[in-house]
Amino acid sequence: MVILTLNCGSSSAKYQVYDWDRKEVLAVGIIERIGQQVSTIEHKALGKDLLEDEFSCSSHTEAIEMVSKMILDKEYGVLSDISKIMAVGHRVVHGGEHFVKSVIIDDHVLGIFESFIHLAPLHMPPNILGIKAARKVLPDVPHCAVMDTAWHQTMPSSSYMYAIPYEWYTKYNIRRYGFHGTSYLYTAKRAAVLLGKDPMETNLVIAHIGNGASICAVKNGVSMDTSMGLTPLEGLIMGTRSGDIDPAIINYLIQETGMSSQEIDSVLNKKSGLIGITGQLSDRRDIRDTAAAGDEKCRLAIAMECHRLKKYIGGYIAALGPIDAVVMTAGVGEMAPHIRLGTLTGLEHLGIHIDPVKNTQSMCRNGELEISADDSPIKILVIPTDEELVMTEDTYALINGTYDIHTNFTYTFQDPGYINKARREKLAAEIKEKPYLKDILIYPPGMKPV
Amino acid sequence: MVILTLNCGSSSAKYQVYDWDRKEVLAVGIIERIGQQVSTIEHKALGKDLLEDEFSCSSHTEAIEMVSKMILDKEYGVLSDISKIMAVGHRVVHGGEHFVKSVIIDDHVLGIFESFIHLAPLHMPPNILGIKAARKVLPDVPHCAVMDTAWHQTMPSSSYMYAIPYEWYTKYNIRRYGFHGTSYLYTAKRAAVLLGKDPMETNLVIAHIGNGASICAVKNGVSMDTSMGLTPLEGLIMGTRSGDIDPAIINYLIQETGMSSQEIDSVLNKKSGLIGITGQLSDRRDIRDTAAAGDEKCRLAIAMECHRLKKYIGGYIAALGPIDAVVMTAGVGEMAPHIRLGTLTGLEHLGIHIDPVKNTQSMCRNGELEISADDSPIKILVIPTDEELVMTEDTYALINGTYDIHTNFTYTFQDPGYINKARREKLAAEIKEKPYLKDILIYPPGMKPV
Repeated sequence: MVILTLNCGSSSAKYQVYDWDRKEVLAVGIIERIGQQVSTIEHKALGKDLLEDEFSCSSHTEAIEMVSKMILDKEYGVLSDISKIMAVGHRVVHGGEHFVKSVIIDDHVLGIFESFIHLAPLHMPPNILGIKAARKVLPDVPHCAVMDTAWHQTMPSSSYMYAIPYEWYTKYNIRRYGFHGTSYLYTAKRAAVLLGKDPMETNLVIAHIGNGASICAVKNGVSMDTSMGLTPLEGLIMGTRSGDIDPAIINYLIQETGMSSQEIDSVLNKKSGLIGITGQLSDRRDIRDTAAAGDEKCRLAIAMECHRLKKYIGGYIAALGPIDAVVMTAGVGEMAPHIRLGTLTGLEHLGIHIDPVKNTQSMCRNGELEISADDSPIKILVIPTDEELVMTEDTYALINGTYDIHTNFTYTFQDPGYINKARREKLAAEIKEKPYLKDILIYPPGMKPV
Repeated sequence: MVILTLNCGSSSAKYQVYDWDRKEVLAVGIIERIGQQVSTIEHKALGKDLLEDEFSCSSHTEAIEMVSKMILDKEYGVLSDISKIMAVGHRVVHGGEHFVKSVIIDDHVLGIFESFIHLAPLHMPPNILGIKAARKVLPDVPHCAVMDTAWHQTMPSSSYMYAIPYEWYTKYNIRRYGFHGTSYLYTAKRAAVLLGKDPMETNLVIAHIGNGASICAVKNGVSMDTSMGLTPLEGLIMGTRSGDIDPAIINYLIQETGMSSQEIDSVLNKKSGLIGITGQLSDRRDIRDTAAAGDEKCRLAIAMECHRLKKYIGGYIAALGPIDAVVMTAGVGEMAPHIRLGTLTGLEHLGIHIDPVKNTQSMCRNGELEISADDSPIKILVIPTDEELVMTEDTYALINGTYDIHTNFTYTFQDPGYINKARREKLAAEIKEKPYLKDILIYPPGMKPV
């Protein structure tokens, strides 16, 4: 059984083709610049060369037609017949309060998604466009929606309510929703496996740090608080987003500058965060190198990002009670030792002891790593996330009739023997070049190392 | 030597008359409804009856003339001659980045304050009006300014900068300033005395919780972070202020409701926080009683306030490293055991053990109390604040030529033998009624209990 997963942005479509029976990724790709004069595609199938090409693509429907064409391509494709795709899983940013788990899409569900457009006006329209286009191109298979917000629906009201007039919640749906839920689900379950614990007895702080970044407090296996709010603007300092600021700054700026609230909102989302402080950079590697060369604003940006992360980790440890581990994931969490070090150094009094050598050596997206000192009461784990796998498995289980909310469902990757084949192969090669990785890799209790 | 301190709001003027030589408050009072048809005065002089009266008062100048008249009043007054007042200390909300300590006011200083009006448009104009009026009524004495922001000027840039375009800082002065500084100065110094430590080696988290509320991380005796920001809106959940929210909520509301940013700013400041959640109440006692009677929104408001406080305390402990004590002060910090308990319960893993019995019994504004369990690694102190005393002492030292920034200056209340006479008398009376207070009161090492 083959499952296609799709993640449609305003001008992009990411996809993955997964063979459920062989538990193997057959192909991954991304189409970008949809609707522009020249669109691009990157496509990589198992055992075949990477394809990078330009083509003309005016709509999401044309993009998904291209995906279908690439999957069937004689040279770069992986399937002989499109009917081998049994279902499509779609990433949907916002499920409001309605969806606490993934769902098979029908017209009623699509109607509900349309009613959430105002909650995420940048993300929901392309998500919905993508679903409609895929249903047109693949009309005979079920389509499922996997939502970023669903994981966080376990939050108590004391976490998700804002201290604003209560009717702003009832009338305008203003509350904390949280995002990156699919990533938290995966990393929380994997952390429990690695720790040898029942997931429903595992307490974690998970930081998903990429260009966008958020952090989640996991109490007994479920989300009890998170840093993103009504929108993905709140919380941590991100590549281009401000995260937390005094809300009075907006009206102050409007009075001082005459900018509109929409202009300010746009700057806070697109020209703030690290790029706002440094004036030019949002990539942590560039910022690290420029700081090392003496640039004061880059130094400040790193100090600010780590200070914010540190405060959130401490705040969630206070709210959670004793935790088992701090988990780092996503691009920066997995590949930026200097951010991890700046964040986690000085937390020994909270039971968090980072091993600076292991941390520096831990740049590997194909294995799970432990970077805490051996005697650290709280473990520090680096777990490469795998949102596509959760989307694939939710979709499989939905059409198979075995699906349920994550608290009542066991994912394949919760089996201590679970292996991501592609990553395992790459890891074996990586270890040959960097043998020290062997000492940092962590496996579920009783499992054999690579 | 007698010193008058003044705290002028838009329609009010609070004052205190202090005899520096006898170290005694001679009179306190407040004029309210300045500029309205009927103004009110409450005035209480040492050893005399409380006066509550109505009168006509169209301006701050008339209000300060009334203060002067009351001080000289045969029946209710305390001085025979206004020339006994040697100096006036004014509370000024905003000192921008210019003032790191208190200052003698001249026309140049007043001009700088006027340039800060845009930073605090509600508070600075009445502060400035009050200074001008007092200089008119008492033209022959020095006037000094004590600023709420000065204490926080020790914050590092990683704490005070927002992750927004850098030029918003340089052009529009947008940064974290922090407030309640005079209260933090007093309570931080007193905590060091009570702990028997050098203030410059004392690490604290201090929560100043009143109708307005903020929290401060004190590292080696100085402010290293605080929850209020550019304005007093950011941070904790307050009586009528929202504290932290997703900044995207403002533009979302403008788009959804058509409200202006000024209207929203006003709601966030005046109709949010506890009154926003409960729909009607901002006084913690009313909320506690209504919650006890089963009201769900009041229960939610308490849970939210405590959850926010808990997160800030944990966040600051993460940022600070090991701390000596958590300090609670101001109306709610001193008199609301249920908020302290809800905040500090469950922090044992951070070294904070509250004693629930001591906490319940600790409702006393005339003595300093310790409500942590005897074996708690981190002490929990309840320290009644005394902003007027700091204002008085800064003013005295300024005109005496002995003043300096708090890191180079020793206040009288840093002497282990320091006693606030009025409070000590009231405390002795209180202990007669509530003898259990004796077991909770804390004194500097070697000092005798009441």
